[in-house]
This record gives sequence, structure tokens and C-alpha cells, in this order.
Amino acid sequence: MKIGARNQLVGTVTEVKKGSVMAQVKLTIPAGSKMASVMTVDSLEELGLKPGDEVEVVVKAVSVLLMKR
Amino acid sequence: MKIGARNQLVGTVTEVKKGSVMAQVKLTIPAGSKMASVMTVDSLEELGLKPGDEVEVVVKAVSVLLMKR
Amino acid sequence: MKIGARNQLVGTVTEVKKGSVMAQVKLTIPAGSKMASVMTVDSLEELGLKPGDEVEVVVKAVSVLLMKR
Amino acid sequence: MKIGARNQLVGTVTEVKKGSVMAQVKLTIPAGSKMASVMTVDSLEELGLKPGDEVEVVVKAVSVLLMKR
Amino acid sequence: MKIGARNQLVGTVTEVKKGSVMAQVKLTIPAGSKMASVMTVDSLEELGLKPGDEVEVVVKAVSVLLMKR
Amino acid sequence: MKIGARNQLVGTVTEVKKGSVMAQVKLTIPAGSKMASVMTVDSLEELGLKPGDEVEVVVKAVSVLLMKR
Repeated sequence: MKIGARNQLVGTVTEVKKGSVMAQVKLTIPAGSKMASVMTVDSLEELGLKPGDEVEVVVKAVSVLLMKR
Repeated sequence: MKIGARNQLVGTVTEVKKGSVMAQVKLTIPAGSKMASVMTVDSLEELGLKPGDEVEVVVKAVSVLLMKR
Repeated sequence: MKIGARNQLVGTVTEVKKGSVMAQVKLTIPAGSKMASVMTVDSLEELGLKPGDEVEVVVKAVSVLLMKR
Repeated sequence: MKIGARNQLVGTVTEVKKGSVMAQVKLTIPAGSKMASVMTVDSLEELGLKPGDEVEVVVKAVSVLLMKR
Repeated sequence: MKIGARNQLVGTVTEVKKGSVMAQVKLTIPAGSKMASVMTVDSLEELGLKPGDEVEVVVKAVSVLLMKR
Repeated sequence: MKIGARNQLVGTVTEVKKGSVMAQVKLTIPAGSKMASVMTVDSLEELGLKPGDEVEVVVKAVSVLLMKR
């Protein structure tokens, strides 16, 4: 499967927090950086994510904001 | 300055491509992963980005899509 | 591959327009509705899209705006 | 009213789920495809959505991700 | 027409810049603040925007990032 | 700190609503217009936002939808 997004990282799930509509998944990517994704609880359950799972982290380049000191 | 986004990575600019309206910036983050950001040419020029620059890479958690094999 | 997004449609590419940085892909989905995606030229070339190709159209639910008359 | 977005579909609300801050609306579009939108509870209440309502489903082309097998 | 987005401002177009795929529209909103929108050239032409036009500026709350000094 | 986004407004927090995963912050910007941002509860707590706080409101131009009557 080819994905039309410039940002594709491999991450490992460290924590899952479920609300009534939305859920938050925390991840680590190589070199120890931390990331997070918010999705619907429906999506979370369909993915069946739990700590330790390996996931592909996908972000379209237009959603990436750069800042410079 | 505190930023209200769950994803904040440090990246190094490797390449800048400028169109007439939009521009693309390629980056590496620690551990060698590659990322990219698309912004307006106006934003690019305001940031004055060039290869070698260190930038903060910011993504709201709602823009992060997870996939699982 | 399971995708953590609530909107997954199957589409057929009808037109590809390439700029210097960004590209636009037009699609039809079942029942004849038209859709469009904008991505970087890099992503377009990696996907190798051309008219007639079948693609998966993915949109996170947070990016969907509803309006009511 | 003209809308500056490439994706405008007509949908019918099938289900509304309300959390404390966010709400999820499920829809069907022609040909039976299913879609979903996440918005604030405030927006949901302002729209007054309930199952059976017809809505306009709007997505900017930059938010549409394509994938190819 | 009711719009399911928390941010709806009235703006006046001050400048339009057209690339081959994407276009940028600059705006002023009341009190003189400046804003900008990026859309496809197709959307720009459908809206027929030119300096002096009054437009509705719509942003979903999930796309708004807050920062604090 | 330079921010690579075309929309940067100054706002004042008027209300904070916290769910289990997501939080909503309401703001006023100059001339009395109202805006809102949705973020994770984690981001809210890191920013430590409360009514009366002054914040920078940042939106990438690609997330701004224009409509015309």
C-alpha cells in the first residue's frame, strides 16, 4: 500500500486514553521522541491499539507547522 | 513560548523547494527519519529557511493518522 | 492494513494536474460524486497516479465540516 | 452561498454521539457509502442535527489523503 | 445556511495570488488584523474572488493552535 | 520565535471547557470577534490556560475556508 503523505514514521504505542467520543494515543518514535494522535473512539477500537503495538504514523505535509528561533 | 500541540520535534532543514504560491521544506529529525512541511512562499520567506537550519516541527495531534498492519 | 480514519471511500482518478510543488488529483466516487485531493508533487510521483487508477480516499473525521440549510 | 472547497457531498445523518466537548455525526452519502464528522458539541447544537437530517459535507482538498494498493 | 465550525469571521479580500495548482487570498478582518487562505485555483475561480470582495472566513476549532508566552 | 503560518492573531481567553480527552478554549480577538480552539486536555494543562489569559492564535492558511454569498 502506497500512502500519499510525506511524513511516515514508525511508532510504538505507549498509552491509550479513551473518552466518550475521542481517544488519545501516545507514541514513541525512534531516538525516543514522543508523539501523540487523537482519533475517534470508533477508530481506536477498529485499530484495536494497546501499549506496545507498532503503528505507522502518517501526517500530510500541509499539516506540519515549522517554527524558528 | 508554550505551544498547544502534542507533537513538537526538532528538525534540520535539508532542502527547500519554492513554487509560485506554495513551498516545500524537507527535514531530518533525530535517528535519521525524514519529514516534510508545506507552507506558503510568504511563510517560507518570513522564516528565511535554508538547508542546515534547525527548526521546531509542530503538529496538532488531531492531524496525526495512525495505521496498523 | 487498518487505517485510523472514519472516512474511507474508493475512488477512480479522472484528472491529474501538476504544479511545481503541489498537485491536484480529481476523482469520482460511487454514484458519480466528484472529489479532489491536493498533495505534494513528490507524493503524486511516489503514488504514480494517472487517470483510471483506483485509489483509497481517506479523510479524518475532524477534517469534515457539516453545513445545514 | 459559494464554498471554497473541492469536496462537497450531500449526506444524510444516521447517528449522533455527544461527549462533553466533542460530538461525532455519522452519515450516509449516495451509493450507501458511510462518512463521519467530528465537531464541538457547541457546533452540533447550533446545527441542531438529528438522524434523518440532510447536510452538506464539506472537505478541503488538502485534507484528503490518497492511498494506492 | 448554518455552518458547523466555531470560527466564522467576516473578511475583505485585499490580494489574490494564483499559482498553477494553488492560490493564496489575503484578507483583512475587523480591527485591521490580516489573515490568509490557501485553496486550489479551481476553488478560487469558482468563488471568483477579487480585492474588495467580502467573504466569510471559516475555520474548524480543531485547526486552531494556541500559544502562550 | 518566528512561526510559519499566515494567520497569527492575539486573543484573550474567555472560557475553558475540559472533557476527558479534549478541551475547548473560547477567545475574543480585537474588535470583539469570537474564536475557539480545540486541543487535548494535556495541551490545555501544559499551557495552563484560564479566562483572561492572552494567547497567540495560530492557523495555517490551508486550514482556512472561504465562502462567498
